Amino acid sequence: MNTSIHWWDSPAAAIDNAARAAAEARQAVLTKPPGALGRLESIAIQLAGLQGREKPELNTVEIVVYAADHGVVEEGISAFPQVVTYEMVKNFANGGAAINVLARALGAALSVVNLGTVVTPVELPGVVNRLIAPGTANLAQTEAMSQDQFEAALQAGHDVVNQGLARGMQLFIGGEMGIGNTTVAAAIGCALLGVAPAAMAGPGTGLDAGGVSHKAQVIERALKLHAGKLNGPADVLRILGGFEIAALAGSYIRCAQAGVPVLVDGFISTAAALCATRMCAGCADWLLYSHASAEPGHAALLRALDAEPLLDLGMRLGEGSGAAVALALLRQACALHNEMATFAEAGVSEG
Amino acid sequence: MNTSIHWWDSPAAAIDNAARAAAEARQAVLTKPPGALGRLESIAIQLAGLQGREKPELNTVEIVVYAADHGVVEEGISAFPQVVTYEMVKNFANGGAAINVLARALGAALSVVNLGTVVTPVELPGVVNRLIAPGTANLAQTEAMSQDQFEAALQAGHDVVNQGLARGMQLFIGGEMGIGNTTVAAAIGCALLGVAPAAMAGPGTGLDAGGVSHKAQVIERALKLHAGKLNGPADVLRILGGFEIAALAGSYIRCAQAGVPVLVDGFISTAAALCATRMCAGCADWLLYSHASAEPGHAALLRALDAEPLLDLGMRLGEGSGAAVALALLRQACALHNEMATFAEAGVSEG
Repeated sequence: MNTSIHWWDSPAAAIDNAARAAAEARQAVLTKPPGALGRLESIAIQLAGLQGREKPELNTVEIVVYAADHGVVEEGISAFPQVVTYEMVKNFANGGAAINVLARALGAALSVVNLGTVVTPVELPGVVNRLIAPGTANLAQTEAMSQDQFEAALQAGHDVVNQGLARGMQLFIGGEMGIGNTTVAAAIGCALLGVAPAAMAGPGTGLDAGGVSHKAQVIERALKLHAGKLNGPADVLRILGGFEIAALAGSYIRCAQAGVPVLVDGFISTAAALCATRMCAGCADWLLYSHASAEPGHAALLRALDAEPLLDLGMRLGEGSGAAVALALLRQACALHNEMATFAEAGVSEG
Repeated sequence: MNTSIHWWDSPAAAIDNAARAAAEARQAVLTKPPGALGRLESIAIQLAGLQGREKPELNTVEIVVYAADHGVVEEGISAFPQVVTYEMVKNFANGGAAINVLARALGAALSVVNLGTVVTPVELPGVVNRLIAPGTANLAQTEAMSQDQFEAALQAGHDVVNQGLARGMQLFIGGEMGIGNTTVAAAIGCALLGVAPAAMAGPGTGLDAGGVSHKAQVIERALKLHAGKLNGPADVLRILGGFEIAALAGSYIRCAQAGVPVLVDGFISTAAALCATRMCAGCADWLLYSHASAEPGHAALLRALDAEPLLDLGMRLGEGSGAAVALALLRQACALHNEMATFAEAGVSEG
């Protein structure tokens, strides 16, 4: 276990309890029966506390998709070939992927950061190449990342958020693309939660039952190989993780430190969130959860985080797509909170 | 039971299976693992079949809120005074209610139709007065509507949809405002489904346990009073219903006949949908369900309709608000379906 002091050891920002209380008081006098907007009320109140304003705003939202390849793919744990990671990076650059469509519809800024793919990247519009290596090492054979690689991935996530802060980002959404990364996220979940691989491994992009069983065995083997070295969240993330997952964790931690709320996507992102909340005190307060993934291991990760996602639509795509879909609900929650008339303003009798 | 032939006896339009199949084929080649967008895929395919186009569109959505009062309020079954129905009509006219905020954010047309309130209405912007009576009769004492009143309410719902059709409406959302109407909707549910009032009555706008129990007793009394006369969905809707619930049923039936999909709101709207699907053959195909209401009786209504709503946010406001929130998801489903690149277009390898 590395015992140096790192930037991610600094705690998260404090919540603004006065703004939160003001938002709670406002909800109580809007023209509706108390509580009738359900979770749309609690979201607005939560965002008020995080943003430090009675009326929260989600106008400037940034979506960042981190892409990277994974050495563990050589174990045959994915339904898609590894070349798809970079093919999808090109699809992002051309505007044809799900997250492109959603970002356009939402008017949210979208950028892609390539942290290292097996295909040598070229310059593409909207894609930043911040290459650490052409993919991680195979976690079933060795440590996925060196300490330097790990810190570079976290730092990439940190720096991306800092750039967003300079543009006035009000909410951060992280996404990921990396063939094989459900295996990686499952391994992280098993190591941090003590869950058996058979309970955490799922079909990912489309494995059959035999494929899922093989995937669980690969994770089992990796956990045995690294037993004794998985002593904390940073070690787990370095030894079993991926560049894109470490970058997500770095972004979540930096958002929490800087006081910007995060909307977490699905299975992979939640594994990153689990690491982030264990690496940085108070980080958990800054993370909102968008949707329950169809990937079966997601439920255990969410339980460990005491997270109740807003949506359950059977999505399992990644890219930040579930968070982007849920952003529409967060914005509606803010609009209702900010724009509805009060009983006094409208001359409506209270119950 | 009235045995004349009425406009609502005509069956619903047929689904376009060719358009549906084309949409299904398109989903299979978009750049994502098959099924990875979950219900957003099935919604797009369903809308394609309903709209008769491979790429469905939800640009011109109309939201209509029907308002009316209920004689049964004199039994003391609501947490809010009856004058609130019209106070909320004024709030709608002034743009301060939840559904105003949501309609503005969605760019959806919103109109309000007052079918009869205890407060004598004046002219208000955005509100059509189509008055049947100053509220229904008390269903716990007598029949809520005469046959003429019932047909006038259904006709209002029919005519509103016809006006929307002339403007090119691509989806219809109905909402309602009427103090006391959770009692009315619960009574309808009990009569049509044979459910006990204690299992269908809920807190509505905010009754305590004693209030809910009293509400169930009022419904019990009404069901005994009208026993033998509740012989079909139209009789149930006339004898136990409300003007706004009958108008919603009329609108749903007219949409189904004209081939326009409907996004159903919560408890009250689903009671209207249950009547509509039983009054008009094929109507059920045209109704999509937006959210699971916090009102406990909603689950039984949804089960009877084999409906799986998209959202479960603990909402219980009415006004069409849950449907408006879910409209954002339907639009995202259409955008993804219509705008994502195919594997061939993007040069991405298939699994």
